[in-house]
Amino acid sequence: MVAPAACTVGIVGLGLIGGSVARGLRQAGFAQRVVAWDRDAQALEAGLQLQVIDAAASDLSELMAAVDIAILATPTLASEPLLLAMLRQPGAARVISDVASVKGSLCRAVAELSPAQRARYVPGHPIAGSERSGVVAARGDLFAAHRVILTPLADTDEAAVEQVAALWSALGAQVSHMSVEDHDAVLAATSHLPHLLAYALVDALANSSTRDDIFRYAAGGFRDFTRIASSDPTMWRDIALANRDALLVALDGFTAHLATLRRAVDEGDGALLAQRFKAAKTARDEFVSSRDGDRLNPAVPDSRDSDGMP
Amino acid sequence: MVAPAACTVGIVGLGLIGGSVARGLRQAGFAQRVVAWDRDAQALEAGLQLQVIDAAASDLSELMAAVDIAILATPTLASEPLLLAMLRQPGAARVISDVASVKGSLCRAVAELSPAQRARYVPGHPIAGSERSGVVAARGDLFAAHRVILTPLADTDEAAVEQVAALWSALGAQVSHMSVEDHDAVLAATSHLPHLLAYALVDALANSSTRDDIFRYAAGGFRDFTRIASSDPTMWRDIALANRDALLVALDGFTAHLATLRRAVDEGDGALLAQRFKAAKTARDEFVSSRDGDRLNPAVPDSRDSDGMP
Repeated sequence: MVAPAACTVGIVGLGLIGGSVARGLRQAGFAQRVVAWDRDAQALEAGLQLQVIDAAASDLSELMAAVDIAILATPTLASEPLLLAMLRQPGAARVISDVASVKGSLCRAVAELSPAQRARYVPGHPIAGSERSGVVAARGDLFAAHRVILTPLADTDEAAVEQVAALWSALGAQVSHMSVEDHDAVLAATSHLPHLLAYALVDALANSSTRDDIFRYAAGGFRDFTRIASSDPTMWRDIALANRDALLVALDGFTAHLATLRRAVDEGDGALLAQRFKAAKTARDEFVSSRDGDRLNPAVPDSRDSDGMP
Repeated sequence: MVAPAACTVGIVGLGLIGGSVARGLRQAGFAQRVVAWDRDAQALEAGLQLQVIDAAASDLSELMAAVDIAILATPTLASEPLLLAMLRQPGAARVISDVASVKGSLCRAVAELSPAQRARYVPGHPIAGSERSGVVAARGDLFAAHRVILTPLADTDEAAVEQVAALWSALGAQVSHMSVEDHDAVLAATSHLPHLLAYALVDALANSSTRDDIFRYAAGGFRDFTRIASSDPTMWRDIALANRDALLVALDGFTAHLATLRRAVDEGDGALLAQRFKAAKTARDEFVSSRDGDRLNPAVPDSRDSDGMP
């Protein structure tokens, strides 16, 4: 196993996430040297100028020959062919990981490789981000106090898993393990589905006849609720397609619950509405207090003027 | 018309909203004197001790005989019988208004009164609130820079409308007029439907098999999206029932949009997903920038660490 302090880390795809990994690993002393490759030469140039990376590779094989650990940090749909190419490279890199927010599609793609080729792949997903993008927005503390989920495969080398866990720990993240299926189901429920709902709501309202009044009189609660509809449409299209199956399961579960509430409103069943609203409030209050308890993602205060406003 | 500075204002229902109106009107000098009545004697006692009000009435008729303007500020479902009782009281009050977040149900209820009885009723709705409740949380600036919508009826006395508009202006609010139907449609779309969706989502997730992981790994975007599911279940049950028709229209419009997105995910139609997501992002970004432009509700920053996180 490579001693962390002697590591050369490779970044494939130098945007916000890849750049933040690079900057953080250099700051933490985990990486002695960071080499990056990106199709966009301007990103590499910016990375060098901003001292986010030490060197730029001219192609993928040059990068893979020069590094101990390689992290794939490209957008979701670009990841699959690049990951396969990385795992097929002989090179020096003994550990290959990624940051894609859907794990099932990548893990199915690597099934075509041999167990030996797959052994050095550690699927990973840091649950962090920013409204900014690009290597110019890279921050060494982007992952501090955020969760990272690793979903090692049956063939994944144990030492590789440990090294990727050490990498994220060096960035201040809290690392945990999950099966690929559970990861995709949990992310579908907590992130991919809410994005779909927020997009659907804003799109429905923007097409309504009272559109102007709707946007004029909407207040803080609406603003919070629809914040995620301002996210990058291309990224979310890719995620929705990559996590299709789990997203449809989560969506259909939600739709069934919503249909129950619709029926209760239609029939004036106040008892059922009160019961379901109360159960939801209890679950969310427990979620918030448990999050406050473990001090992860503590930045966002939960009480606001707009709360509970009818 | 009563000269504002000489007004005695009556508050029926002394909670957060009624108490904040009372405190604000005294601070602004709009009310010379504020008298309140509440079924809960402890609320009146607290209001007197905290100097939110000047006097407590022993019943509704005593209050109506003593005031120039009476504001009904009880929960939604309690409002209807009280409003009818107030409008039937002869008393001194020449202007009667309310703060209920659904206008159609109250306006239908007063149809049984004579045009003369209805003339002094000015339906109103301040779009403001707080996660706190009760007269102890009353703040004189609760409505500052918030919108208030008045929905005068065909029979409503013009001078009464002007006086209620002056009252809210004295509290720093921006007053506008709307039809009852438009008000209920706009509030259904921007507030009542989002609450229903947030309750449905949290309830669906709380009942899922991966519940523990869902709440463990949910991050900032989810927290924002579900914040309103921590609102008071009883209040929202009442609002959903009171605004049934407009809520069902908004809900069915949303459901149709969501079904389109579901089909696109199911069929892998990335072009349609990208187009709908982009339209929603554009609409929301315009909404946010127009809100920032008019300086209303400026308290909530819109960029956060959790934005756009996959």
